[in-house]
Amino acid sequence: MKIATITSESNNTLKSIRALHRRQAREKEKLFLLEGTNCLAEALRKQIDLKAVVVSQSYLAEHLEELLDLELEKVSVVEDKIFAALATTATSCGVLAVAALPGKSKTGISNWQPRIVAIADAIQDPGNLGTLIRTAYAAELGGLILLKGSVDPFNPKVVRAAAGALFSLPIISDLETQEVIELLRSNQMRIIICQASASKRYFEADLTDSVAIVLGNEGQGVSTAMSEAADESISIPMNPGSESLNVAISGGIILFETLKQRLTVANS
Amino acid sequence: MKIATITSESNNTLKSIRALHRRQAREKEKLFLLEGTNCLAEALRKQIDLKAVVVSQSYLAEHLEELLDLELEKVSVVEDKIFAALATTATSCGVLAVAALPGKSKTGISNWQPRIVAIADAIQDPGNLGTLIRTAYAAELGGLILLKGSVDPFNPKVVRAAAGALFSLPIISDLETQEVIELLRSNQMRIIICQASASKRYFEADLTDSVAIVLGNEGQGVSTAMSEAADESISIPMNPGSESLNVAISGGIILFETLKQRLTVANS
Repeated sequence: MKIATITSESNNTLKSIRALHRRQAREKEKLFLLEGTNCLAEALRKQIDLKAVVVSQSYLAEHLEELLDLELEKVSVVEDKIFAALATTATSCGVLAVAALPGKSKTGISNWQPRIVAIADAIQDPGNLGTLIRTAYAAELGGLILLKGSVDPFNPKVVRAAAGALFSLPIISDLETQEVIELLRSNQMRIIICQASASKRYFEADLTDSVAIVLGNEGQGVSTAMSEAADESISIPMNPGSESLNVAISGGIILFETLKQRLTVANS
Repeated sequence: MKIATITSESNNTLKSIRALHRRQAREKEKLFLLEGTNCLAEALRKQIDLKAVVVSQSYLAEHLEELLDLELEKVSVVEDKIFAALATTATSCGVLAVAALPGKSKTGISNWQPRIVAIADAIQDPGNLGTLIRTAYAAELGGLILLKGSVDPFNPKVVRAAAGALFSLPIISDLETQEVIELLRSNQMRIIICQASASKRYFEADLTDSVAIVLGNEGQGVSTAMSEAADESISIPMNPGSESLNVAISGGIILFETLKQRLTVANS
């Protein structure tokens, strides 16, 4: 592993890293940032192409062995103070990488297995979307579709909260609602929306096969177009004194209900 | 509603607000901060004693009607720039209040209904704890016990993520593990820990009555003392490629399983 020291804040790699905090730069350069040893290791396991790895001086001193384990070709070192201005979080552990955005998935949703997908209908909080990606992968979903209006899945906060699942779960993003409805119809998938007013409870619905579960925006819920296209509405019964659940939590409850149903059907 | 203008940053109320960002000051003054119109309205509904309400000039201009609806005696207004230094979040909507910490709950866990409680075993991330509080209230739990080592439930980030549930769900905090084990035993409650290695799946366990569900720390999981005291271990089956779930998500899945079992038993 070669170690290079960068001393100037106007170094090109550092400039590029600072720019990649913004979506526009990520889309133009086809690059994104990832941070932390675990995330880096997971990216390498999934053959994500790392263009540069930058560490702080204290990270290098304390974690040299972990770094060597990653078998990187080259690492750049900067002073802790300079690193702090690159990091995407105030509590960064001191290592980040510039990575190539994965190409658009070549297989469409017709090849996703199992035929259980989640749809994020304009989820805007990056922590919520990242957690949802991590949860969808853990619940063994076939994939995730992000409708237009959702936060960029390569936003650094999404990358962090997704904890590696971003490189494993098939994701299609930036699709129009109408386009997705047609895609689901042509794939014979039932559209199931989660809505507080639905009388059918989530554990009463058949979620074992060919279903697309739509999770709505934090404030507005599921869009009107999606509601109108829905084959079924389900709700999570809860304390009437409680306003609602965080969307990542309601997603977790319903996506894991699909896994439970699949496991139970397989055993019976 | 009286409106007072504060122009000096060294005003005592403002000084006190800045201090209350820290746990030590909250415990010494027996006060905490809450932020946002919804959180304020919920606190008022639950008879939380508000000592002061401060808004930014633009909040006052844009939300006067909502403020009047709250029927507050007095509101202090500060310039937006001054407000930004008081707020507990970079994206504050412009209203915050100083509130009296609720007294320790007079009824012990023996009076909590239903007899289903959650135990946070050193949960350290404020967003996770706040979401867990919101989720536990929505899942109609009897209450929540926070073991020593957990983040302060009146940390502003916990208050925000709990979205009002903090004022409704019975919570006991800062207890030693041994003390809680004895408390549960004397109340004839089964201790159930969530552990990835457990062979019993969460939906195979009877979670309908007299159970205490222990949710472990983000890194270490459940403590050894708690594991040794456990009557039962349960796990959430998941994708073997996935490392783990966020603790708020696994909590959500298991706490809502308890509600589902209660609803299903009641109907059968």
